[in-house]
Amino acid sequence: MTATTKTIVGYTYGTSVVAPSPITMEDLAHLKETATFTTEDERWLRRAGAILADQAEEMVDTWRAVIGEHPFLAHYSANPDGTPNARYSAASKPRFAQWIRDTCERPYDQAWLDYQQEIALRHTRAKKNKTDDVDSAPYIPLRYVLAFVPVILLTTKPFLEKGGDSAADVERMYAAWCKTVLLQVALWSRAYCDAANW
Amino acid sequence: MTATTKTIVGYTYGTSVVAPSPITMEDLAHLKETATFTTEDERWLRRAGAILADQAEEMVDTWRAVIGEHPFLAHYSANPDGTPNARYSAASKPRFAQWIRDTCERPYDQAWLDYQQEIALRHTRAKKNKTDDVDSAPYIPLRYVLAFVPVILLTTKPFLEKGGDSAADVERMYAAWCKTVLLQVALWSRAYCDAANW
Repeated sequence: MTATTKTIVGYTYGTSVVAPSPITMEDLAHLKETATFTTEDERWLRRAGAILADQAEEMVDTWRAVIGEHPFLAHYSANPDGTPNARYSAASKPRFAQWIRDTCERPYDQAWLDYQQEIALRHTRAKKNKTDDVDSAPYIPLRYVLAFVPVILLTTKPFLEKGGDSAADVERMYAAWCKTVLLQVALWSRAYCDAANW
Repeated sequence: MTATTKTIVGYTYGTSVVAPSPITMEDLAHLKETATFTTEDERWLRRAGAILADQAEEMVDTWRAVIGEHPFLAHYSANPDGTPNARYSAASKPRFAQWIRDTCERPYDQAWLDYQQEIALRHTRAKKNKTDDVDSAPYIPLRYVLAFVPVILLTTKPFLEKGGDSAADVERMYAAWCKTVLLQVALWSRAYCDAANW
């Protein structure tokens, strides 16, 4: 993994520039339990990762096609005049694809937890646009992050099916995928929300 | 529907005591588009409603069983000393079950939108415990609302399968269910979050 991820600009996973998350490992453990995310799910994510790793860029293209159909969504990665920002899209795509691989392949340890917060901040007023030094919308509203989750979920199953596993095993991988995506969205919401309500 | 819902204490859907939502119908339209929720999904929700209506209470029991396994979750409907509050659970159950029926059967119009905000507020410091006049935790943290979504999603498919529809049609109903649950969670997040970030 190292050889590949080192070439991704702005991908700082596991490095000293990533601040410690305000979320504790105990918080994470509770969220895993709430999502019924188990070690069995971790095992199915590993298998999902083997299937999805080489399809990750195509998955991102699939998601971005949905965004591209809606100007009010495309707005968040566009130039201030509404035209597409090709440099921004090109720069963020490898990180978005790597998120898929990290989701399936990484242990959910302190480094992973810290990087979840970094990902969250890069969607908010705190850090959006800074990684790629672009001029674009100042944040992605929480409501669109949440409402886009069905796209992230439902479009993934056909990619999982390409691994040739049994339908039952695809369901198991898909369930693990659902759980981790919502788990991560729950972590990201911390950056949007007063700590007293989170 | 009227005869049944009139007997549900604290269920105020469509009545004058429900305040107008701060979310506009245009916001809702954008969220539907973000979730790729279409009129086709509405049609599959109607079919899902026919299957789930009589199973709604059992679905709530299934979800509450997960909550009951985790004291840190059970806390939010418990007495201040941590013991279960049977009156609170009994009072809120018919409303929770009715939420399933409303999700599948109701048009997503202004009355529905207004009631989404009412549902959201009843999970926050603004209105939790007030409907049933109970002494319990002052709010349900956003992170648990989000992390519990996989439970709401994944446990629903077996109930949908009991309708005897083809596997393909169950998938269609399940996709519609995923979309509407995330759509609603996106609406509820408004009550947790600064409007400038929502």
